[in-house]
Amino acid sequence: MNKRRVLNVLGRIVLTEALLMIPSLAVSLYYGDGDAGYLAATIFPAALLGILCSRIPTPDARLTSRDGYCIVAYAWIVISLIGAVPLFLTGQFRSYWSALFEVVSGFTTTGASVLAAPERLPHGVLFWRSFTHWVGGMGVLVFVLMIIPMKNDNSMHLIRAEVPGPTAGKLVPRMKRTSAILYGIYAAMTVVLVILLLFGGVGLFDSLCLAFGTAGTGGFATSAAGIAGYNSPYVEVLLSVFMLLFGVNFNVYYLILLGRIKDALKSEEVRCYLGIVAAATIAITLNLFHGLANLGLTLRQAFFQVSSIITTTGFATVDFDLWPEFSKHTLVLLMLVGACAGSTGGGLKVSRVIILVKSFFAEIRYIISPKSIQTVRLEYKTVDKATLNSTRTYAAAYLMLVSLSTLLISLNGYDLTTNLTAVLSCINNIGPGLARVGPTANFSVYSDAAQALLSVVMLIGRLEIFPIFTIFSRSAHDR
Amino acid sequence: MNKRRVLNVLGRIVLTEALLMIPSLAVSLYYGDGDAGYLAATIFPAALLGILCSRIPTPDARLTSRDGYCIVAYAWIVISLIGAVPLFLTGQFRSYWSALFEVVSGFTTTGASVLAAPERLPHGVLFWRSFTHWVGGMGVLVFVLMIIPMKNDNSMHLIRAEVPGPTAGKLVPRMKRTSAILYGIYAAMTVVLVILLLFGGVGLFDSLCLAFGTAGTGGFATSAAGIAGYNSPYVEVLLSVFMLLFGVNFNVYYLILLGRIKDALKSEEVRCYLGIVAAATIAITLNLFHGLANLGLTLRQAFFQVSSIITTTGFATVDFDLWPEFSKHTLVLLMLVGACAGSTGGGLKVSRVIILVKSFFAEIRYIISPKSIQTVRLEYKTVDKATLNSTRTYAAAYLMLVSLSTLLISLNGYDLTTNLTAVLSCINNIGPGLARVGPTANFSVYSDAAQALLSVVMLIGRLEIFPIFTIFSRSAHDR
Repeated sequence: MNKRRVLNVLGRIVLTEALLMIPSLAVSLYYGDGDAGYLAATIFPAALLGILCSRIPTPDARLTSRDGYCIVAYAWIVISLIGAVPLFLTGQFRSYWSALFEVVSGFTTTGASVLAAPERLPHGVLFWRSFTHWVGGMGVLVFVLMIIPMKNDNSMHLIRAEVPGPTAGKLVPRMKRTSAILYGIYAAMTVVLVILLLFGGVGLFDSLCLAFGTAGTGGFATSAAGIAGYNSPYVEVLLSVFMLLFGVNFNVYYLILLGRIKDALKSEEVRCYLGIVAAATIAITLNLFHGLANLGLTLRQAFFQVSSIITTTGFATVDFDLWPEFSKHTLVLLMLVGACAGSTGGGLKVSRVIILVKSFFAEIRYIISPKSIQTVRLEYKTVDKATLNSTRTYAAAYLMLVSLSTLLISLNGYDLTTNLTAVLSCINNIGPGLARVGPTANFSVYSDAAQALLSVVMLIGRLEIFPIFTIFSRSAHDR
Repeated sequence: MNKRRVLNVLGRIVLTEALLMIPSLAVSLYYGDGDAGYLAATIFPAALLGILCSRIPTPDARLTSRDGYCIVAYAWIVISLIGAVPLFLTGQFRSYWSALFEVVSGFTTTGASVLAAPERLPHGVLFWRSFTHWVGGMGVLVFVLMIIPMKNDNSMHLIRAEVPGPTAGKLVPRMKRTSAILYGIYAAMTVVLVILLLFGGVGLFDSLCLAFGTAGTGGFATSAAGIAGYNSPYVEVLLSVFMLLFGVNFNVYYLILLGRIKDALKSEEVRCYLGIVAAATIAITLNLFHGLANLGLTLRQAFFQVSSIITTTGFATVDFDLWPEFSKHTLVLLMLVGACAGSTGGGLKVSRVIILVKSFFAEIRYIISPKSIQTVRLEYKTVDKATLNSTRTYAAAYLMLVSLSTLLISLNGYDLTTNLTAVLSCINNIGPGLARVGPTANFSVYSDAAQALLSVVMLIGRLEIFPIFTIFSRSAHDR
């Protein structure tokens, strides 16, 4: 790894973050809540630091794959450390670590909060908190590349490190042009959602914040009342549908734009995703059934929570911690599954689950006929061996990380349901869990150390496990 | 699959089971509790059925791998269905499904019970219940092969299907002679334990039952008071040590017998296993710390429960459901790990965990240097690709089966901690879980349907997931 090269790129990233804070500063100046100083006190030193670092001369060598992963891992850590500063300065957080948890939760599009009443934050910082969802959903490095182009055209190494996954992961740019189109779709859908929210009578500030939370599948609301506070079936259904849309593989939209509607509708992953949503909604509706008169309401509530959890957004319109056990267990299962690869959602991803299920059957066929060659197909193509290996190792790593993190935070003395769903919520970038971290509670119950650990878990989940560990690998530093 | 061949082998198995019930019948006649009739009413029809089926003429063709797996899967189902009959006839079970749960729990060496007071069972049936642990720990088919030799020497196919695993699995016979030695060790260690228990003042009946439960890493006690009822630190420490010994890879004892002590001590898996036991015992002791005066007691209690859970035996001397959360979480983590491959214990197995951890680091090295070739080593040898694939797929399958089973039994309305630990306890063949299935509770809280599902989960766990599914595979039946 070339240290000067890494510092140079990190400088550009810090500068970009400073620029991305400017809209929040504008909001702050407009509302005059007195938080403009907090934002300015972050923006100017960050911009200065960024400019200085980005001027470090670098060798002309191409970025290697290992450089890419290390840069991505460090980038996410650095932007979180800086992004937490204005939140901490408001004095609404009990420590810097709590503010860091909140902003990591923002960038990773988790949406888990340590605040009992986010509405106490001044508007500028509240806007920044939601804006991190929108930035994080898209990927941080993409902004860097858009705003400050790099000399060599090896930027794809960076993006690939940020968007791994079985077919690809989050938004899937294979070439620079494709990526511009994908992010165009993302921005356009966000704008459409803002307009539709305004139609529903939601104020501009809230419309923007909710749209950021939905588009990034984040889940920060602007007040403790959350989505239920708008008391509007229109807003509820609108968000349910848009959460689902942002959980779809963006390649599908790209295909639609190209006019290849047939190919788009053929997507195995999207069909499976919608099938799971339908099945879970029906199962929960039946489990909650309060009589025919309330069927519409029950169905709407079930659909909203299912859509929110499977897309890993984490908005809630009811306190699902009070639901019957089967419905709660269904939500926990949806937490594991997550949204489609190539969307802004987290979790294992539907395509990974499909590969794992098919691997399971392939293994059974293999032990029956050890001489046969078993392949696993996804989207009508054979999955290559490297992808199969990494998907299976991913599931194993996921199991180990969830178990170990749950054990460590149990030192705070809470029950297994709280700890396990807290970790699942963080590693899958969802937001709420059950019991003491249920939708009406928040993560302030955990100590600073536990919050710091959960922040790492959120980053591990957002970067899909392996990249964050490359910075601890000795071989990553040996050149 | 050749149906006549399968029926023929199943006939031998049923006949063997009838023969294995004879000692219980003798116990029953000795105590005269009136259960001799229940046992006789099972033994004679079973023996008759077994003899009839074993006379079905079979083709001379070799047993294929698929035949082996199907036979093993059907064999475990058939012996459970028959073995449950005497238990059901006592009238102490609310349904045949409950009796089936109990006997599956016995054969799979789980030790989960649906009885609040097992001492209410007549002695003969109580003996049979514990004896199933001893038979199941060793493997059912081994008895068949010992008692009724087969024509062709392709019996190893059968044993391999029953004892899979990353290096091998439960007791690891590679050749018939080796297997006889391994089972000799198993029997000898059981006899030693019985003698040491008798020295400790435990009665002969209880000594035999406890030794069966310990050797098979099962966990059925003879009364609701369990091990605590003997009120003897000697018995407690003795069982702690023997549980650990039965959780060691039996190949190690074989090496010791051959005089290769150095090789035996070098075993990576056993070192890792003992390291985990030591670390968990210390962690729990510190967490429970009640002052220096009680340090010995605390250490003894911690060591007993750790040894019991990691070896998947499931005896308890304290109600660990009342322990602080960190200690409980530690036990849940030990449930996942399980004992060594090639022992009588269940769980993922230490060697699988080692392979998974090393795969994780190999994957990180791979994404850093995609062109490098990464290998995973276990016991100073490179693990071959087929084993790596199957171990990773195993972890993924495990994750999926645990999630789905937990969801299904949540229909009974219990909390996540109860359901998750019930499933973990069953798939890892442990016995107790937490909350409503804690060490002082039992599985009778679940409905018949949930108990039937958990019986299947125990079988899936005991046969290490894949074999049980071969009987549903269409290709297994197509010839």
